[in-house]
Amino acid sequence: MEILKGACIIGQSGGPTAVINASAQGVIQTALKHTTITKVYGAANGIKGILADKLYDMDLEDAKELNLLQYTPSSALGSCRYKLANADEDETDYQRILEVFKKYDVRYFFYNGGNDSMDTCNKISKFMQKVGYDCRIIGVPKTIDNDLYGTDHCPGFASAAKYIATSCMELYQDARVYDTGTVVVVEIMGRHAGWLTAAAGLATNAGSGPDLIYLPESIFDMDKFLQDVERVYKEQGNCLVAVSEGIHYEDGTFVSEAKTSASDGFGHAQLGGLAATLANIVKEKLDVKVRGIELSLLQRCAAHLASETDRKEAYMAGQVAVEAATDGATDKMVAFDCMRNESGYECKPVLIDLTAVANVEKKVPLEWINDEGNGITQDFINYALPLIQGDVIPPNENSLPRFANLNKVQAK
Amino acid sequence: MEILKGACIIGQSGGPTAVINASAQGVIQTALKHTTITKVYGAANGIKGILADKLYDMDLEDAKELNLLQYTPSSALGSCRYKLANADEDETDYQRILEVFKKYDVRYFFYNGGNDSMDTCNKISKFMQKVGYDCRIIGVPKTIDNDLYGTDHCPGFASAAKYIATSCMELYQDARVYDTGTVVVVEIMGRHAGWLTAAAGLATNAGSGPDLIYLPESIFDMDKFLQDVERVYKEQGNCLVAVSEGIHYEDGTFVSEAKTSASDGFGHAQLGGLAATLANIVKEKLDVKVRGIELSLLQRCAAHLASETDRKEAYMAGQVAVEAATDGATDKMVAFDCMRNESGYECKPVLIDLTAVANVEKKVPLEWINDEGNGITQDFINYALPLIQGDVIPPNENSLPRFANLNKVQAK
Repeated sequence: MEILKGACIIGQSGGPTAVINASAQGVIQTALKHTTITKVYGAANGIKGILADKLYDMDLEDAKELNLLQYTPSSALGSCRYKLANADEDETDYQRILEVFKKYDVRYFFYNGGNDSMDTCNKISKFMQKVGYDCRIIGVPKTIDNDLYGTDHCPGFASAAKYIATSCMELYQDARVYDTGTVVVVEIMGRHAGWLTAAAGLATNAGSGPDLIYLPESIFDMDKFLQDVERVYKEQGNCLVAVSEGIHYEDGTFVSEAKTSASDGFGHAQLGGLAATLANIVKEKLDVKVRGIELSLLQRCAAHLASETDRKEAYMAGQVAVEAATDGATDKMVAFDCMRNESGYECKPVLIDLTAVANVEKKVPLEWINDEGNGITQDFINYALPLIQGDVIPPNENSLPRFANLNKVQAK
Repeated sequence: MEILKGACIIGQSGGPTAVINASAQGVIQTALKHTTITKVYGAANGIKGILADKLYDMDLEDAKELNLLQYTPSSALGSCRYKLANADEDETDYQRILEVFKKYDVRYFFYNGGNDSMDTCNKISKFMQKVGYDCRIIGVPKTIDNDLYGTDHCPGFASAAKYIATSCMELYQDARVYDTGTVVVVEIMGRHAGWLTAAAGLATNAGSGPDLIYLPESIFDMDKFLQDVERVYKEQGNCLVAVSEGIHYEDGTFVSEAKTSASDGFGHAQLGGLAATLANIVKEKLDVKVRGIELSLLQRCAAHLASETDRKEAYMAGQVAVEAATDGATDKMVAFDCMRNESGYECKPVLIDLTAVANVEKKVPLEWINDEGNGITQDFINYALPLIQGDVIPPNENSLPRFANLNKVQAK
């Protein structure tokens, strides 16, 4: 294997998670002590920071603060949502990236993100190969949506799942406290893949969770939904429902966006989100007390409820990316190959081709959704439960979290 | 002091909290081992359970499950919102309560709740005195709203405050992650008193919290609000706002309910709640990316983030109620007398007259709100910070909470 000396850049992209900074920490700490990596830069707001020549010098960070990254939610280097044009149509961005790479002698590029970010990573990788610029490029997976192809799961998912399950357990206790019943609808992130909404089923499995769960992998039928809610409410006097933000009718229209639907005749305004919309429809049709709750950003930044398994794996993904790259790997994404059996759970990092990952969405298998389309099966529980194990004990000051404070000194 | 032998009833009322069950546990465990208390009953759904002769026999509960109450959010015995008529206008309910008390030889009644519950407690106490039925009646304070008169603070407030502060700290990290800015509006409970919204200031004090905070104690001015947001957004590129659900215009109209307001000319629909409404107004006027987040029930049931100080004090309130009653006290509420100085924080339970407490609302002192009416002062921090100290480590199974499972065997 040829030794490649040079600088590295770590960039973060897409929606943040509770542990994406643990991956960044894994990259940064591993790179800082690696002899073939001469310099470690953090890109301000992902690829946009590279295009703008705005890089932070990670050598100038305090080691203690870097170590707090693993307990700090959101993307400490800043994030972006920026889609690169195809290089064969417009090379402008790529030429600029090459220019910046050359300026700082960047020979290692680590990009930490989800589907779109792996697309970016893949495109840059292919371009650098085409122009013959020697640069090892590795994607570090991240997404609460858990929809990356080729990996058992994605760092960030388990912590959000744990937050969702715990919150649903608490809500279940709260929402059935009065002698007069209530229907509570909880809206959970995941526009195309229902992994996070399925995580609400971990609460149900623990005896205190949603009675009904609707994923975007199933077609949503408003009449069936109202029948389900009415049945549960009649049986129990209360009903807790978890819905994915991405539930949609047979014609593909999102329930959250449908003004009126020919198939069910319900007209509802968009303002206030899906949870409020569904709650209002239930109130109108069943004449019961309702409440809509949207977990919103809370579910992706709840570092205080992060899964220790997730934190460790997120760090490992960053560490493995650097080790693999310095060992010669490029054009890959770090993925997880996992075993679940009687003797426990095991997670092994592997490398897969960026081309295979980019722009492919992995959804919840239909066999993991019950026949009624309003709940999940034991298969999902077996899959997800090992991932949320262990509690992160984040450092605190005055019993509130102590997050990392980076200097972010811009490189010259 | 005369020894009074007989049974006791504990009832829970009003909105639940993360630690109201700790108070119930304090009452139940103390009463179960007390020799003058012959029997311990839990009222199903507070006073409504007494009216319906639906009492649970607490002697039949498993000791281990009872011990889990302190980690279980919501009201384990069930709650109600039921206002008793004035006894001089309609004695029906009171006669029924007396009948049930006599049936079970109830000589001790502990009622765990907020303002309305203390009103109920007070009315029953005065009626029993009037008819000469010997029964010792003590109110056990509870409310996340922290608005009970005569006590330094209320059990339940600190745990909700800690959840709000921690969540705001996380949201602050998340909401400024992109290079394109966002205005995030977080809606917090407290219709008339701003204690919980002020708790968002603990996050700001920790360096990661709302830029602007609006309490219901100040008059809300939409133009001023938009100016504030615009200024912060221009300075920082982002803006995090915390608002109380109870903010209102000068004429007393709640912002959440105002369809149109003559004073500011803004028309906005109610659907979707205050956070969404304000976010939409900001979007319309300032043309920036916005998001409205309502903490909703999450803030009152987040046992996983409970304050250890709060849990201990909540338990103590229940314990002291039983000890005081068996010592002869009646017609009182347990209150906290607290000291904060260089040597730390000290909380001493005291008893105050129910009459003094019932129906009085304690609000955030106006001196604790800044001159601009968009933030809180150090006085509030000094007041609230000691209350959120210490982390409850709730027992768990498979890294999810393990809540109490009561048998709830109905007494005959």
